[in-house]
Amino acid sequence: MTLEEMKQKFQDWKFATSAYQMAITIISIDKLTVAPPAGAAYRDAREAYLSGELFSMETDPEIAELFRNLLASDGLTQTERREIELYQKEMNHILSIPKQEYVSFRALQNRAYDVWHQAKLDSSYAQFEPVLKELIEAKRRLYSYRNSSESVYNQMLDDFEPGMNMEKYDAFFTKVKERLVPLIQKVAAAPQPDTSFLHLHYPAETQKKFTEEVLLPYLGFDHSWGYQNETEHPFTDFTCENDCRTTTKYLEDNVVSSIFSTIHETGHAWYMHDVDPAYDGSILSFGISSAMHESQSRFCENYLGRSTAFWEALYPKLQEYFPEQLGNVSLDAFMKAVNASMPSLVRTEADELTYPMHIPVRYEIEKYLFAENGSADHLDELWNAKMKEYLGVEVPNDREGILQDVHWSSGDFGYFPTYALGSAFGAQFFAAMKKDLDVDECLRSGNYRTCMNWLKTHIHQYGCRYDAPKIMKMATGEEFHPEVYLDYLEEKYTKLYNLE
Amino acid sequence: MTLEEMKQKFQDWKFATSAYQMAITIISIDKLTVAPPAGAAYRDAREAYLSGELFSMETDPEIAELFRNLLASDGLTQTERREIELYQKEMNHILSIPKQEYVSFRALQNRAYDVWHQAKLDSSYAQFEPVLKELIEAKRRLYSYRNSSESVYNQMLDDFEPGMNMEKYDAFFTKVKERLVPLIQKVAAAPQPDTSFLHLHYPAETQKKFTEEVLLPYLGFDHSWGYQNETEHPFTDFTCENDCRTTTKYLEDNVVSSIFSTIHETGHAWYMHDVDPAYDGSILSFGISSAMHESQSRFCENYLGRSTAFWEALYPKLQEYFPEQLGNVSLDAFMKAVNASMPSLVRTEADELTYPMHIPVRYEIEKYLFAENGSADHLDELWNAKMKEYLGVEVPNDREGILQDVHWSSGDFGYFPTYALGSAFGAQFFAAMKKDLDVDECLRSGNYRTCMNWLKTHIHQYGCRYDAPKIMKMATGEEFHPEVYLDYLEEKYTKLYNLE
Repeated sequence: MTLEEMKQKFQDWKFATSAYQMAITIISIDKLTVAPPAGAAYRDAREAYLSGELFSMETDPEIAELFRNLLASDGLTQTERREIELYQKEMNHILSIPKQEYVSFRALQNRAYDVWHQAKLDSSYAQFEPVLKELIEAKRRLYSYRNSSESVYNQMLDDFEPGMNMEKYDAFFTKVKERLVPLIQKVAAAPQPDTSFLHLHYPAETQKKFTEEVLLPYLGFDHSWGYQNETEHPFTDFTCENDCRTTTKYLEDNVVSSIFSTIHETGHAWYMHDVDPAYDGSILSFGISSAMHESQSRFCENYLGRSTAFWEALYPKLQEYFPEQLGNVSLDAFMKAVNASMPSLVRTEADELTYPMHIPVRYEIEKYLFAENGSADHLDELWNAKMKEYLGVEVPNDREGILQDVHWSSGDFGYFPTYALGSAFGAQFFAAMKKDLDVDECLRSGNYRTCMNWLKTHIHQYGCRYDAPKIMKMATGEEFHPEVYLDYLEEKYTKLYNLE
Repeated sequence: MTLEEMKQKFQDWKFATSAYQMAITIISIDKLTVAPPAGAAYRDAREAYLSGELFSMETDPEIAELFRNLLASDGLTQTERREIELYQKEMNHILSIPKQEYVSFRALQNRAYDVWHQAKLDSSYAQFEPVLKELIEAKRRLYSYRNSSESVYNQMLDDFEPGMNMEKYDAFFTKVKERLVPLIQKVAAAPQPDTSFLHLHYPAETQKKFTEEVLLPYLGFDHSWGYQNETEHPFTDFTCENDCRTTTKYLEDNVVSSIFSTIHETGHAWYMHDVDPAYDGSILSFGISSAMHESQSRFCENYLGRSTAFWEALYPKLQEYFPEQLGNVSLDAFMKAVNASMPSLVRTEADELTYPMHIPVRYEIEKYLFAENGSADHLDELWNAKMKEYLGVEVPNDREGILQDVHWSSGDFGYFPTYALGSAFGAQFFAAMKKDLDVDECLRSGNYRTCMNWLKTHIHQYGCRYDAPKIMKMATGEEFHPEVYLDYLEEKYTKLYNLE
């Protein structure tokens, strides 16, 4: 085969796999948003079958050889080489898994989601425990085929954030805890601002109108390339540059929950939308790592979305939609309330300062689950104990406790730490952006797109072209160091709570 | 291969094809409801690819041989034999089409939908004409591979309604016109009831609330197995017994448009839901013919949905949702208005009496398009002339004229006649149902499900197990004859308009 023929074969293979990937993505979005639940068994079995077909293509020995031959040739651009190396890495992770086992795992994931969803509605960890055990067992088995010398959990961490492992995360969380635990205690001892007006009755319908008529247009989340739906657990997914989907959930006793989750999810969506369109349909079109993805979404949510300038643009409009609830609340009082810090139960609702403390709860449980003697027996008790330890809160039920997050229901162990790491990445990006832009002026004047363009230029456009540490270096001129994040939180909350 | 092995191979093939079919269905529903339009090119190309993969499986020579061997064996139940014969018939229709041509046609269909949708928004037939020509040309070519001695249009008619052809439809429409044209004229000359209150301002939001809180529950369209979304052109689709999707469209100047379209589409959905679940994933799970499908949807819409008993249950609730608009309108006045007959522009909004006259307009245009000298040049003019001839109305624009219906945008020529035929089937089913049930009492007391159960027992459960004429005979004890339908219309409208 000539080089051109090999390249063509590679392109054809990419197109075919991207077609299956697209089908699986759309089936998944459909399942998580609107698909009638009683049809799940029928659909899930077929989704698993199609995933198996994709698996066969992704582990095709002919394609493995094609990768080797292409990489051995000297006719590749650096981007082509990078792309093939990434595909090859993915292939090596799954190459030795028996197809039937892979298909069974997909079916298990589909089933586990429904079990988790019902268990959460019923607030019963006991309902979820058996399937969680199945997931853990299946994951252990799937990783066993890799024959890595690394522990299973280190491999999981590396899958979501290449280069990370328990040692590095332990060091990171140690620093975080050292600085934040005393800060959180000081804040807890200080007088709290009034937040009660955020929790009056806010009809979901009116929240939705505000989101669609004001918030999404302000965020530039355009109907031509983006669509927001509703779901139990907000998420973002995409098929290509011009097809990014987000979801949200309206809580009638919390006017800002859906707003911040919308800003968060559209932050993911902007990342997907702004990757170089030449990468559409390729592995290069994905975000480079989970922490990098969360750095973008939490950047939008917190560094931009919780700033006064952001709300100078939007708060008068929010008051128009909720005149009875907010008509007499000043912008200053509103800003104090949306930035108030108070240990709480639910990660996605947590304030910026206590948020990172939700992560070690999950991280340490995951470490335990995949350690020698780990077991999911009575894991709710361990959860509740750790929540008490790190956040000082009593967990009243599983719904707001161990069942709050969707991740484990799909076997995604090792993801959570990237939320904290991503938040920390974000602080460094924020510092760099402020050197180039008058961020407050952009937000105040409705030029949110200008901030997104900065992210596009420095981060989004690259997709998977460069790894996360390199992007950090290119975007900020520095390696990652968590002090920027911890300094930012200290400065912000010292000021907000007049701690000095 | 033993018989058992052959049967297993057949089951595996069915499962695999049903997985692709499901993916294609969900991708299509997604496209027609929520998918961001700018992503269409990316998605459509991949959908076409997956359709091509399904096409390869459906035309696999090994499977063709399997069908022959199974049919030659004497170990099949009658149901198994019927099922394989149906698959074989489908296969024979496409067997000689080159795969690339099939894939191109799928891509054309996807593109044509978007062109039609934009052309309709812009009310410009000129925008749609070129792609309509491509569709006609492509369809002609696809049918040429069948090597049938029948004309292309007769084959199309037979595809949607096995056994039907131009000769039979001509005879049917002649009878319809003979009886209905004079009746429509008499009605037009009679004093018209007031319908103005139907066209006050009815906010879409409130309509949606009524639909979701009152109408869908009354119709028994349960969230566990059904989901209704919104779209430009209402449709129903399904993946299995417990996954039926409908759509509707709320018009703010017409309070009943979406209601009757909802009753119509959920009529299709009940058919899909009530097929014997043993047929899930098989060709047997589909409706037996288009007219039979439309007979069910139009049955629900008209024979049930436009009856006084139906509204005795629902009208007081509708008044509660729209007290300003309907508070002072009596049930009697409302019933007269929703049954008022007046020639109009849009088929889906037409009353029961003038509705069938919309069909020859389309049927005769399709006959012309696929005749020797047919051409889509200036087809809007032909449309407008025929609307004038059959309904006496002047068409003011293409949006309410030739571009109103979605069907041609996917190359579905030959479908329209089944609407009229299905309406006529419905009258015969209605007469039979009334012998067994006190239909009015069922509707009045909220037992809509009892009527659906009658349809399930006599029609739905069979799926494609028996052909339409046999089902008609089993359900009503008679062959189909259109007089029952024409008598029904004559009696209903003579009474409504005091014509005697």
